[in-house]
Amino acid sequence: MTAPVVVVGGDAAGMSAASKFKRDAPDRELVVFERGQWVSYGACGLPYYVKGAVETLEDLVSVTPEEFVEERDIDLRTNHEVTAIDRDDRTVTVEGPDGEFEQSYSDLLVATGARAVEPPLDGMDKDGVFTLHSMGAGADIRRALGVETPSVDSREAAADYADAESPESVGIIGGGYVGIEMAEAFAERGLDVHLFEMLPHTLQPFGAEAAATVEDHLREEGIDLHLDTAVEGIRGDERVSAIAAGDADVPVDLALVGVGVAPNTDLAEDAGIEVGETGAIATDEYGRTNDDHVYAAGDCAEATHVVTGEPDHVPLALTANRAGRAIGQTLAGDPTPVGEIAGTAAVKAFDLEVARTGLIDEERATEAGFDPVSVTITAPSRAHYYPGGSAIEITILGDRESGRVLGASMVGREGVAKRIDTVAAALHAEMTAHQLSYLDLAYAPPFSPVWDPVLTAAKVLEGKL
Amino acid sequence: MTAPVVVVGGDAAGMSAASKFKRDAPDRELVVFERGQWVSYGACGLPYYVKGAVETLEDLVSVTPEEFVEERDIDLRTNHEVTAIDRDDRTVTVEGPDGEFEQSYSDLLVATGARAVEPPLDGMDKDGVFTLHSMGAGADIRRALGVETPSVDSREAAADYADAESPESVGIIGGGYVGIEMAEAFAERGLDVHLFEMLPHTLQPFGAEAAATVEDHLREEGIDLHLDTAVEGIRGDERVSAIAAGDADVPVDLALVGVGVAPNTDLAEDAGIEVGETGAIATDEYGRTNDDHVYAAGDCAEATHVVTGEPDHVPLALTANRAGRAIGQTLAGDPTPVGEIAGTAAVKAFDLEVARTGLIDEERATEAGFDPVSVTITAPSRAHYYPGGSAIEITILGDRESGRVLGASMVGREGVAKRIDTVAAALHAEMTAHQLSYLDLAYAPPFSPVWDPVLTAAKVLEGKL
Repeated sequence: MTAPVVVVGGDAAGMSAASKFKRDAPDRELVVFERGQWVSYGACGLPYYVKGAVETLEDLVSVTPEEFVEERDIDLRTNHEVTAIDRDDRTVTVEGPDGEFEQSYSDLLVATGARAVEPPLDGMDKDGVFTLHSMGAGADIRRALGVETPSVDSREAAADYADAESPESVGIIGGGYVGIEMAEAFAERGLDVHLFEMLPHTLQPFGAEAAATVEDHLREEGIDLHLDTAVEGIRGDERVSAIAAGDADVPVDLALVGVGVAPNTDLAEDAGIEVGETGAIATDEYGRTNDDHVYAAGDCAEATHVVTGEPDHVPLALTANRAGRAIGQTLAGDPTPVGEIAGTAAVKAFDLEVARTGLIDEERATEAGFDPVSVTITAPSRAHYYPGGSAIEITILGDRESGRVLGASMVGREGVAKRIDTVAAALHAEMTAHQLSYLDLAYAPPFSPVWDPVLTAAKVLEGKL
Repeated sequence: MTAPVVVVGGDAAGMSAASKFKRDAPDRELVVFERGQWVSYGACGLPYYVKGAVETLEDLVSVTPEEFVEERDIDLRTNHEVTAIDRDDRTVTVEGPDGEFEQSYSDLLVATGARAVEPPLDGMDKDGVFTLHSMGAGADIRRALGVETPSVDSREAAADYADAESPESVGIIGGGYVGIEMAEAFAERGLDVHLFEMLPHTLQPFGAEAAATVEDHLREEGIDLHLDTAVEGIRGDERVSAIAAGDADVPVDLALVGVGVAPNTDLAEDAGIEVGETGAIATDEYGRTNDDHVYAAGDCAEATHVVTGEPDHVPLALTANRAGRAIGQTLAGDPTPVGEIAGTAAVKAFDLEVARTGLIDEERATEAGFDPVSVTITAPSRAHYYPGGSAIEITILGDRESGRVLGASMVGREGVAKRIDTVAAALHAEMTAHQLSYLDLAYAPPFSPVWDPVLTAAKVLEGKL
């Protein structure tokens, strides 16, 4: 009897692989080990859970462990941590509730995800300091806000805030997706929000133009922005009482640290699996590592960027789901590439939608061998006469030599988040600015001007190339 | 001295051509003849003008005649009708307010647009029967509804409704864009609306699946649908009193006829300019007719369909603007193809958005040489846990042999009108269903599930090909 396929990690990549594998090869064996209790959860939804738009953590789960077992016939073991890989013997060491054991594998998928980076700041261990690294952390934050969280079944012991004053202010360290979304969540809960960003702008992957527009809006919404400001430490006795940054201490009752994520590669690296320059696990177009029987997917793995053709690490949900699914299909006998990434992303910031795809940063585009040209335009979201429209600002980057579109960012009150997809499709098709400007896109007065803003941006870019 | 470029028709195609030409070749001469008084007007906005979302007809105008003359240095002659083309002498005959004259041209652009089709029905000439063929018609309808239209300066004598009762019901003949948009406009004005459609479904270009969903919604909104119902005539003495259809007369106080548009080709045909099988003026990729010095663009002209590669006639605003602009650029010395069309379109029907692109009709796809396969899926517009989402229904058509995507339609309460653009881009790039399913599209809980509905549709289509 051949050994089963083994999957390490039960979130997006792992469960997508398991589901696709069992659908395509129902008679073959597969085991998933997940060290936590939650599988297939929408970590991207945690800010909305803290905000209160989502009621319970269970609401974030798209498929429960029971459903994976009963409906998809997947041998899923939660609370099982894989602690070592022996590639010569093709076995993994597993620590479960009943002790340690060895499990042999025919093929192995490493889908160990990423973790919140914990910066080396004084005071990170004080009470009232959080990262948003897990479902349990989401519940802890709600408790710290004094919000009832009845159905929460967190593995982690929540700190005891019975004695704590109800918090009135929060310092968010880091102005990325999580920082921006949590700013909205905390503001909705009535807290004064201080957002600290080391760089001159928030939302670094979205470019300075889009970020500046978002920052104006955040200020309108009452967020205290501290840009270009390195946090030096978190002050307080047992509990956080202030963020030390620049010349002054900013008093706060809570702190949320969201300075990015790092791929969980220790398990793979200890077994001699190679990581790439990005620090994530290096893979080929099928998601295979330097070991033919070991695959990697999701937030722990690299993927090929569609514009540069180079390995990149952009930990996002679709990339994980897609690569997992492709690897499941490959392991079931139908070799399927994991697909290329454009780093397409969207985020809501209060009343604004912000989106990006491809290369936006001129420096990075130059490093990748392009001669980048960038333009920023503003165009209306609806026909000029149709009520309720607003401005969409688009920054688009092209290559002077080839005329190719390299990437774009957008920001506006409506029609932004999915409009970026048109540019993403153009990147996959390696379209020039001219070709993009000649796409036959939809027009109707309530939804777009005759020349869609994307077409206008492409036209202006073409004129400058 | 060389003769000027002459443009016949001052709407989207004509004024786009004139503007681009004068921008690129400011020292060369160009004359635009427009038989009406309005130029560059948003006819697509007329239903919203009738509804009251747009206050005045002037609001629909994007650039006024004065602005064209003063800011863009265009020799624009409104109220001038071109009545004949002499291709041997390269002159046109023009009838203006001061009589008839000849105008020589170096190159000629025919941008005569389209007209509302008037079906051969008894009673079309009765009072209270309208087509939405012009700005003046929009004003007339508002007057017939008893709505004050202070700033309207219509060329056409408005019928005198001083004696007429305030209308309480309307019969709309034709369930295309105009019919659906006008149903919403009349309902907003408090009228009982009867919508008559000869075919089994409204919105024929959007396919039966999307149309059926729209029809359910129209009924919810109180519209009386008469599908599969040929109108036999319009009853009444001087004024319309009923629509005769099927076995019964349906009493109505007004009638709006919107059964499609036909290209205005008489002027060109009389001069020996060829029309294609669609009935519109045949053109090459630069918009040139069978006469090297005569171009045609906009609603009167054919364009090449991006999926079939064949000439097609889909009179839409972007096609007209784009072709006009390209021809202006060509005439200024930079040969520029007019671009291919996918028939991409969107329409609002009360609370629904409906959109389409490419080939949706299996019969037509078969005629074009494809072996079509179609699937219909339903997917959520937001992450499953994010409040306020709704279902998006997508029908997507692919070719069994090549795997290519041929077209798609979508309907839903949000996120539809511009989501179709992703599929339109895929059509331009000749993507397969597999390629479309592997695009890196944006995900954020408020705007999309992880797998965008377009990706899901493409995956399901791929599985069936």
